Amino acid sequence: MWKPDRQSKKTLYEQIADHLEQRISYGEFPPGSLLPSERKLAEQLDVNRSTVILAFAELRSMGIIESRTGSGTRVSKSKWGATPKHTPNWRRYAEGGSFLPNLPFMRKIREALTQQPSLIDFASGELAADLAPVDEIAKLMSEHKYTSYLGYDNPQGYIPLRQDLVSFLARYRGIRTTESSILITSGSQQSLYLITQCLLSPGDAVAIEDPSYCYSLPMFQSAGLRLFRLPVDQHGVRPDDIRALYKKHRIKMVFLNPNYQNPTGTVLGAERRKQVLDVASELALPIVEDEPFSLTAYEGNPPPPLKSMDTVGSVLYIGSFSKIAASGLRIGWMVAPRSIVERLADARQQMDFGLSVIPQQVAAQFLKSSHFEPHLDRLRIQLQYKRDLIIEALRKELPDLVTFTAPEGGLHLWCKLVPEVHDGKLLDEAIRKGVVFVPGSVYGSDSGFVRFTYARATAEEIGLGISGFAEALRELIDERSCLD
Amino acid sequence: MWKPDRQSKKTLYEQIADHLEQRISYGEFPPGSLLPSERKLAEQLDVNRSTVILAFAELRSMGIIESRTGSGTRVSKSKWGATPKHTPNWRRYAEGGSFLPNLPFMRKIREALTQQPSLIDFASGELAADLAPVDEIAKLMSEHKYTSYLGYDNPQGYIPLRQDLVSFLARYRGIRTTESSILITSGSQQSLYLITQCLLSPGDAVAIEDPSYCYSLPMFQSAGLRLFRLPVDQHGVRPDDIRALYKKHRIKMVFLNPNYQNPTGTVLGAERRKQVLDVASELALPIVEDEPFSLTAYEGNPPPPLKSMDTVGSVLYIGSFSKIAASGLRIGWMVAPRSIVERLADARQQMDFGLSVIPQQVAAQFLKSSHFEPHLDRLRIQLQYKRDLIIEALRKELPDLVTFTAPEGGLHLWCKLVPEVHDGKLLDEAIRKGVVFVPGSVYGSDSGFVRFTYARATAEEIGLGISGFAEALRELIDERSCLD
Repeated sequence: MWKPDRQSKKTLYEQIADHLEQRISYGEFPPGSLLPSERKLAEQLDVNRSTVILAFAELRSMGIIESRTGSGTRVSKSKWGATPKHTPNWRRYAEGGSFLPNLPFMRKIREALTQQPSLIDFASGELAADLAPVDEIAKLMSEHKYTSYLGYDNPQGYIPLRQDLVSFLARYRGIRTTESSILITSGSQQSLYLITQCLLSPGDAVAIEDPSYCYSLPMFQSAGLRLFRLPVDQHGVRPDDIRALYKKHRIKMVFLNPNYQNPTGTVLGAERRKQVLDVASELALPIVEDEPFSLTAYEGNPPPPLKSMDTVGSVLYIGSFSKIAASGLRIGWMVAPRSIVERLADARQQMDFGLSVIPQQVAAQFLKSSHFEPHLDRLRIQLQYKRDLIIEALRKELPDLVTFTAPEGGLHLWCKLVPEVHDGKLLDEAIRKGVVFVPGSVYGSDSGFVRFTYARATAEEIGLGISGFAEALRELIDERSCLD
Repeated sequence: MWKPDRQSKKTLYEQIADHLEQRISYGEFPPGSLLPSERKLAEQLDVNRSTVILAFAELRSMGIIESRTGSGTRVSKSKWGATPKHTPNWRRYAEGGSFLPNLPFMRKIREALTQQPSLIDFASGELAADLAPVDEIAKLMSEHKYTSYLGYDNPQGYIPLRQDLVSFLARYRGIRTTESSILITSGSQQSLYLITQCLLSPGDAVAIEDPSYCYSLPMFQSAGLRLFRLPVDQHGVRPDDIRALYKKHRIKMVFLNPNYQNPTGTVLGAERRKQVLDVASELALPIVEDEPFSLTAYEGNPPPPLKSMDTVGSVLYIGSFSKIAASGLRIGWMVAPRSIVERLADARQQMDFGLSVIPQQVAAQFLKSSHFEPHLDRLRIQLQYKRDLIIEALRKELPDLVTFTAPEGGLHLWCKLVPEVHDGKLLDEAIRKGVVFVPGSVYGSDSGFVRFTYARATAEEIGLGISGFAEALRELIDERSCLD
C-alpha cells in the first residue's frame, strides 16, 4: 500500500493529490465512481484528515473530482473532452448478478482486519502461523524436485494425492474408499459450493444445523435453496427432526458437521449417529458430512465419521487440510459415488479449470512425510492449551457474564452472553478495543451468542483479547443501564 | 489405475470380481448404480471381454450385481439385509442442479484422452511439457525459501504478485494500473465465471464473437445469459455490429479476444480497435477483453490491448499464465475498477475461499526471475516452428481438402474443410486413427471447421497426427461417395 514520503520536498497533500490522480487515470476509480471518504483515506495513508481535505481541494480545482454534500466525492464525468463519452455504470454491474455478496458482518470483520492488521483475531476460522507446518512444508518444497508436467491436471485432482488419501482415510478415519471416488477440491468451501450448484436446484429444501456455519455462507441463498433448521443440543441434532422435516418439506439433503461442530463445538452422540444413518436409508436421503476438525481431537480418538458406518451409500463425505495443516494450501477432498464425483469434476472444469498441481504435490508430500504425525500431535496439544487459556481468561474477566461448554476438539468456543446486548454494537465496540470475533447471529442463531476462534491468536494475545472484549461488553452494559 | 496381476495364482476373472466387489462395498458404485460396460472395463483393465463376462457372472451368482438385457449391469439393491434400506437416487442428483454439464463433444474428447493417453492431442488448448518452463520453475521452487504464513490469502490475491503484475502489465502490455485494481484468479476461466455469475443476471443479453471459445463454455448458458453473435472476418469483429446488437437487444456486455483469437487466430484491426472503444463509450457498454495469447506473437510486437487505449474505463481486462508459461500454475488476473474487483473477490471467497498462496509465490518468483524473458523468446520460436510444421503437413496430406489462414501468434489453426462431412463421425474416426481435435461446431460456427491446437503435440507427433486425421477424413469422404 502506497504511503506519502515524509522526506520528500513535495508537501504531503500534493503527493496525495498526484497519487490519487494517477489511480484515477489508470482506471481504478472510473469517471462517476465514488472515492474512499476523507476519513478512510487519512487512516489508510497515515495522515491527518486535513491533509486529505487539501488534496481533494487540489483535485477539485483541476476538475478531476466533484464533491456534493452528503453523497461523498466522485470522479468527474465531464473531464473527458467535448464528445460525450460514457463510462459503464459499474456500480449497477457490481450490484447485479445472481451470486449474493457476503454477509455485512463478515465484510465488516474482513475490512477491519485488512485495515488494522494488529487486531486480535478471534474471528478467522484458521490456525495461527505457529500452528501450521510452515517450516516442514518449506523444507519439503526445497528438498523435493517438482519436475512433473505443469499442464492442466486431471479433472478429479492429482492422482498420487488421491492414492495417498485412500490410505490416509482408511488409517485415520476408518473410511474405505477408492481413488476414483475422491474429488480433490480447494477446500470444504468449494466442495459445498459444487454440491449446492450442481446437485440441487433452486427451490429445493435442505436441512442444516442450527446454529451452523452454513448460515454464514450466502452460497446456500445464492443457489436458491430453502433452508430448514435442525436444532443442535448438547449431543448434536435429533434424528427425528430430520424425519419431521422430510415429511413436511421434502428436504433433499442434510448438511451435518458431527465432530466439534462449527460454531458450537458439539459432538453428535454415538446412538444418534446410527439413527441418522437409519433415517437417511429409510428416506433415501443424502447426508453431506463435513468433517474438518476431527483430527484435532484433544484427547483420545475422535468419534468415527458417519461415512465409515454407511453401508447404504447415503453419505457424501467432505474433508480438508485447512484446519489440521494449513488453510493456505487450499486442499480439500470429497468422497462420493463415482457418478457424483464425475459430475462435480466436470462442472468444476467450467468454473476454474481445476486446481494447480503444485499445492497438490506439496500436500501429498506432506501427508506421507515423517512430519505429518508429529505435526498433528503438536497441533492437538497447542489447541488444547489455547482452549484452556481462553477459558481461563473468560472465567477471570467475565465470570458472571458468559456461559459455555468446553469443546473437546476444534478451533471454536461458543459463548452465550448473559446480558442482552446488541450484536453489531458489541462488534463495533470490540473492534475499537482491538479485538474481532463473529457475532452468533451470523450462524443463524438468536443474538446473544459469540463465536471465539482461539486457534488464530497467539497465546499472549488470548488474554489481552478477552480483556478487550470484556471492556467492550461492560461498556455496552453500562451504557444500557444509563439509558434505563 | 488398478490392473489384475498376471503373475498371481488367482485367475484374472477372480481378481477382477474381488476388485469390483471391493469398489462396490466402498461405495464407489452404490446399490442401484450402473457399472461400466463389459467392453469398457476390458479396455481399462487390459483383458479380454470374456474375462470381464466371467467376473460379472461370479458377482451375479453372489447376488452383488444384476444384469438386464439392454440396460446394462447394476449393483443389486436387495443385497442389504431384511430391513428395506434405500440408497439416494444419485443419478437424479447428478442430473439436477442449475450448473450445466460440459458439451458432449468436450466430454468425449476428455474421455478419449483419459483412456488413451497415447492419442495425438490437437484438442487441449495448452502448451506441451517441453514448451512450459518446468525446469525453471522447479529450480525456483528449490532455491527460494517459501516460509511465508500459510493462512488464507488476501481475497484479491497475493500482494507481491499483484505488485509484480503492475510492472509486467506496464512493460509488456502498455497497461497502467494499480495493485488494488488487480484480482488474481485461477485463470481466464475463473475470471469469466466470476463475471458471468456476479455482474450479469439471468436473461441479460451479451455479445460474443462468432466463432468463439465462449460457445464451448456452458457457463454462459448456466448463468442464463442470452448470447448474440458478432461475426469474425479476417480483421475481427465489426464495431457497427456491436451498435446494432445494442439497439436490438440491449446487450449488457461484449466479450472479445482481440489478439490471435481462439479459435480463428484473427487479430482485430487497428482502426476497429479505436471504433470498438468509441462504440463502448458511446453506449456506456463494458468490454471484456480476454488476452491470453498476446505474448506468443511470433514476429514483432503484438497489437496493444484495448485496455491500454481505454481512457473512459470501459474495459475489463483478463490475462493469464496458462498459454505463455504453464496452465498447471492456475494463475490468471483481471484488471478492473476497484468496485468490480472487490465485488468479485468477495464472491470468490464464497466459492472457493481464494487461491493457494504457493503457486502465486512461484508465479511471482518466475515473473521477476531472469528466466522469464528467455522463456518467452524460446516459446515464440517453438510455437512458430510448430505452426510451420502443421501447415506443411496439411499442405502435404490434404492439399485440396482444407483451407486456412496462417496465424501470427497463439496456439491454434482454424481450418475449413472443403468436403462436407459429419462433425461427430469425423471425430470418432480420427480417434480411431489416434488423433483428437475440436470440431468447429463447438465454437458456435457451422460444421465444416476444425480447430487444431499445435502447441500440445510434439514436433514428431504433428506430422503423424495430420496424416491420421487425413486418413480419417478420406475414409469418410469415400464412405459418403459409396452411399451417393
